[in-house]
Amino acid sequence: MSSNGKLTLVGAGPGDPELITLKGARALAQADVVLYDALVAPELLSYAPGAEHIFVGKRKGCVAFLQDQIHELIVQRGLQGLHVVRLKGGDPFVFGRGSEELAYAAERGMEVRVIPGLSSSLAVPALRHIPLTLRGVSESFWVLTGTTKAHQMSRDIGLAARSSATVVVLMGMSHLPEIMAGFKAVGKGDMPVAVIQEGSTPAERAVVGSVSTIVELVAAAGLGNPAVIVVGHTVKQHSVRQSASLSLNQSFFATPEMAPAS
Amino acid sequence: MSSNGKLTLVGAGPGDPELITLKGARALAQADVVLYDALVAPELLSYAPGAEHIFVGKRKGCVAFLQDQIHELIVQRGLQGLHVVRLKGGDPFVFGRGSEELAYAAERGMEVRVIPGLSSSLAVPALRHIPLTLRGVSESFWVLTGTTKAHQMSRDIGLAARSSATVVVLMGMSHLPEIMAGFKAVGKGDMPVAVIQEGSTPAERAVVGSVSTIVELVAAAGLGNPAVIVVGHTVKQHSVRQSASLSLNQSFFATPEMAPAS
Repeated sequence: MSSNGKLTLVGAGPGDPELITLKGARALAQADVVLYDALVAPELLSYAPGAEHIFVGKRKGCVAFLQDQIHELIVQRGLQGLHVVRLKGGDPFVFGRGSEELAYAAERGMEVRVIPGLSSSLAVPALRHIPLTLRGVSESFWVLTGTTKAHQMSRDIGLAARSSATVVVLMGMSHLPEIMAGFKAVGKGDMPVAVIQEGSTPAERAVVGSVSTIVELVAAAGLGNPAVIVVGHTVKQHSVRQSASLSLNQSFFATPEMAPAS
Repeated sequence: MSSNGKLTLVGAGPGDPELITLKGARALAQADVVLYDALVAPELLSYAPGAEHIFVGKRKGCVAFLQDQIHELIVQRGLQGLHVVRLKGGDPFVFGRGSEELAYAAERGMEVRVIPGLSSSLAVPALRHIPLTLRGVSESFWVLTGTTKAHQMSRDIGLAARSSATVVVLMGMSHLPEIMAGFKAVGKGDMPVAVIQEGSTPAERAVVGSVSTIVELVAAAGLGNPAVIVVGHTVKQHSVRQSASLSLNQSFFATPEMAPAS
């Protein structure tokens, strides 16, 4: 055990607490401190019953900790020789600042490791039976953020609209009309679009339409962030889905002795 | 329980058996039949000790079952009222034919469900501490297959080379020189590239270079499929990695009573 402590970045997956990996659950069981985000299922903290739990996310626009403070917290606990698990929604390396946290800790002598998680960009469409690739229909997928560091729409979205990829946009709900305008501008008004809010959780809601209709459908349904936007022909596959929330809320660890903390 | 049986598509993750989800492991424990691919860790079958295990993948270019035969096998077992788990490497909806299997089973009255898995396209770079997005460096990532249905290089790769996305190519090793030529043609000869073979397994090997040097480096190291190719500035981050195969081969389920089959 390093005297400078240990940081494990763990991806919590898209929301359903059972969509964490076995390895991620085990890391929680070995944690001394868990720093967790707003989009992480509270049930996951029960895998780390003896650890200190610190909420470092955003709630209703309010920030509990600035990014610099999260860095300091990791290293401060590390210097006590502790194992810090940084539990982040989705995958820790997709549009999160996991890489910055890892680099900061490593530069200060902490042992660092990454346990990937299911990114909502892939998992949330899959749970709705929407494949991102499909033989003869789509040979690639492009995942973008709707909002850049400067709070503007990403320039990449214009390029993505011109490509043949299935396009997935995270954090794009506040720019949905502009994003769809990018697709309309290249003659893709009829392209299917799905918007899935809080995918994989009991609160999951979704609408399916086209580039031309989705803004109105989303407004009528009152959908907002966190949501995954999927644009592409593979969205048509969603109709094969039979059971929207099958087995949600069932616990994998049915009995206490099966929990990873034991 | 439907009389036409049940199909659960489960993503096994990139190779390390602990990178399956809790939900995926539980589905295996509830399976009557498991149909599995070549890239699936054999340890995962131990979560389904009472089930019939059928290998339906490819070994050394030999096909055990044609795709149509896999479809028939699923439905034939389904008609016996059984729960079939289709265990696929990575995520079942990324460059697999999971969506076709799901549609076939659903059309024949089977209850169908998807449990996503970690796609090697994201997880394998993450385990090497390579983020696909990074604030101020890359705001998106594009995942492509190197080989299309017609066994040709995907046309999308030329577009991807022109984009600002981090580009990830699966199944691209036999076309590596052509793929790199696409990036050179747009002046990106110095762009960092990582090639990671059998990521997340004890056999993992990797080389890091640039668009101009990677073909030679890969040949010198003797790397081939299955491998993940990552092209983009975020590849530079790989140097923060400290412990390449930390905790591989450790078992999450340390004792039999913790196994999901109980």
